[in-house]
Amino acid sequence: MAGNVGGKNNEIDIKKQVVDGSRMAGKQSVIFRNPPYIIAGSSMAGKKEGEGPLGDMFDQVHEDYMVGKETWEEAESELMKLAAQKVIEKAGLKNSDIRYLVGGDLLGQLIATSFGVAELNIPIFGVYGACSTMGESMVLGSMLVEGGFADRVIAITSSHFAGAEKQFRFPLDYGNQRPYSASWTVTGSGAVIIANHKAANKKEGELDVVITGVTGGKIVDYGIKDSMNMGAAMAPAAFETIKQNFEDFNIRPSYYDKIITGDLGYVGANILKELLKENDYDISENHMDCGMEIYDQETQDTHAGGSGCACAAITFTSYVLKQLREGVWKRVLFVPTGALLSQVSFNEGNAVPGIAHAVMVESK
Amino acid sequence: MAGNVGGKNNEIDIKKQVVDGSRMAGKQSVIFRNPPYIIAGSSMAGKKEGEGPLGDMFDQVHEDYMVGKETWEEAESELMKLAAQKVIEKAGLKNSDIRYLVGGDLLGQLIATSFGVAELNIPIFGVYGACSTMGESMVLGSMLVEGGFADRVIAITSSHFAGAEKQFRFPLDYGNQRPYSASWTVTGSGAVIIANHKAANKKEGELDVVITGVTGGKIVDYGIKDSMNMGAAMAPAAFETIKQNFEDFNIRPSYYDKIITGDLGYVGANILKELLKENDYDISENHMDCGMEIYDQETQDTHAGGSGCACAAITFTSYVLKQLREGVWKRVLFVPTGALLSQVSFNEGNAVPGIAHAVMVESK
Repeated sequence: MAGNVGGKNNEIDIKKQVVDGSRMAGKQSVIFRNPPYIIAGSSMAGKKEGEGPLGDMFDQVHEDYMVGKETWEEAESELMKLAAQKVIEKAGLKNSDIRYLVGGDLLGQLIATSFGVAELNIPIFGVYGACSTMGESMVLGSMLVEGGFADRVIAITSSHFAGAEKQFRFPLDYGNQRPYSASWTVTGSGAVIIANHKAANKKEGELDVVITGVTGGKIVDYGIKDSMNMGAAMAPAAFETIKQNFEDFNIRPSYYDKIITGDLGYVGANILKELLKENDYDISENHMDCGMEIYDQETQDTHAGGSGCACAAITFTSYVLKQLREGVWKRVLFVPTGALLSQVSFNEGNAVPGIAHAVMVESK
Repeated sequence: MAGNVGGKNNEIDIKKQVVDGSRMAGKQSVIFRNPPYIIAGSSMAGKKEGEGPLGDMFDQVHEDYMVGKETWEEAESELMKLAAQKVIEKAGLKNSDIRYLVGGDLLGQLIATSFGVAELNIPIFGVYGACSTMGESMVLGSMLVEGGFADRVIAITSSHFAGAEKQFRFPLDYGNQRPYSASWTVTGSGAVIIANHKAANKKEGELDVVITGVTGGKIVDYGIKDSMNMGAAMAPAAFETIKQNFEDFNIRPSYYDKIITGDLGYVGANILKELLKENDYDISENHMDCGMEIYDQETQDTHAGGSGCACAAITFTSYVLKQLREGVWKRVLFVPTGALLSQVSFNEGNAVPGIAHAVMVESK
């Protein structure tokens, strides 16, 4: 297998993968017989994100960090509500056309989500995977659709710089210093609609985008204890999930045009590439990290890069989805990564375990 | 329909419900073509729960509130780990036989779960539905199995009295007084294995237990702002989900031998029954609330009853599962209920929305 680096032999044989109605592939993965469609994506971004390299591609850039609300938490809820409404509008649907919403956020007890989507009146499954939440939402959402349990599902997540600093580190008012290994939590919310029917939200000549399979992640703990270095905490989880995806489908890195991690940033991305290289997988040619794309490192003073649930979410729903629709990329592996800490676990001296869920997305 | 109160006409016509491979039923429900099995259940309980009416039925009662650990959070993680290990053991399986684990808890960022199940080395989907989490885990877990995405899934949750008081109200050391509308968070953890194969963990002559359908819940907000009266906050959500279940399957309350809510307690249960009665549904004959079963109200000073994710979970995995296996009850609707507040949302003056997910369980 080590010598099989792409081309004709780097294809998945779905007949071999699927036995007796099962969708199970290898140890942790799923292969879909009827790949569900991503019929629309939406992206709400904050001011800083709007000033970054992807600024032009977001549906809305909110100059006001409070989004017209009284608290940071309410501001995040508002971003999530706007992202949900926007994705429904872009798909030409009504709230009642959405069977279930799968979503979550970083705040304790998922309050950004609960208060954000309550009034949409859509049944909801709250999920938590830290910054891997967009991955988890899309993994579960695509299973719900392909399994026949739903015709259309929204997968959604959000984060807010100020709310996250307050939740995990220090309130901004303390003015604490940030080490260079620290990342910057993205303010925004991204949503997709996964459906068993084809395509809204496409321009003439654009391609369909489908989810062909997923790999569910394990919790991986390498004993990192530094809450200012999330990239190092998450890289081992990204490594395990990506390696498992290659093994479960018997493919090489070149199977994908892009392997897109969520928010490892500059520090974590290097660790990921090293770990894979030690296992004979070279992703240096086709790796991309949303945390390294969303800000300009030279001018925006964001240190290790972007992070937060919204980092992977709005990079995917703007830039990545566009590349797929236009056929620039044919196949991507989207791997949002999460660091499973809380203020309590950190203060009690626990390590920061990581998790990563992978979604195989193709244009056709 | 109002006149159809059971008997032959109170049956679900699965052929009418299922069209074209879809499992969708009505507006929010799912009906399974190949109902997955609950092949084992486990229950870890605290001292107070062990002294209650269900004490003899739990797999283990832990006299030590710290479960040998240093912090309340670690104690809860340990209970969850023990519940997972026990359910795997009772099913005669190994960790590697479990495809995915779906679980969550009440603590911010689900740390009881992350640190509890990490070392099991099973891919995990973290979920949050407050005290409805066992319902959400079982809803998603049964979909994952019936959809062919997994052969065996663990659905699990936990809560801890001291950890929950610290998280949501006041640390115990403050010695604050509890109003009679307040409930008592159950210390414990419950787990089930949902599988596409039949039955481990059965004694000679016991029945198989299957999940025939589910109803996913919406967030319901009646504007309750009292964090010491969770029953009132959750009752409207239980009402909406139960009513939707009746409507989606065109059945009456008598379809079920028991309709089992999670932790409404004495205050919430009365509100639920009233709300349903106003809609021409009388559940006074077959309603049961886990929060009212788990403690002896006369002698245990638990005021409105039990609550917390573990309340519904360990009542289900001990008492309810036993009644089903022995054929005392043939059909139950299991409806764990959750109150979607956090300390932050409460302190910022927000209301406490509720959510409830329903699982249709049968013995056969």
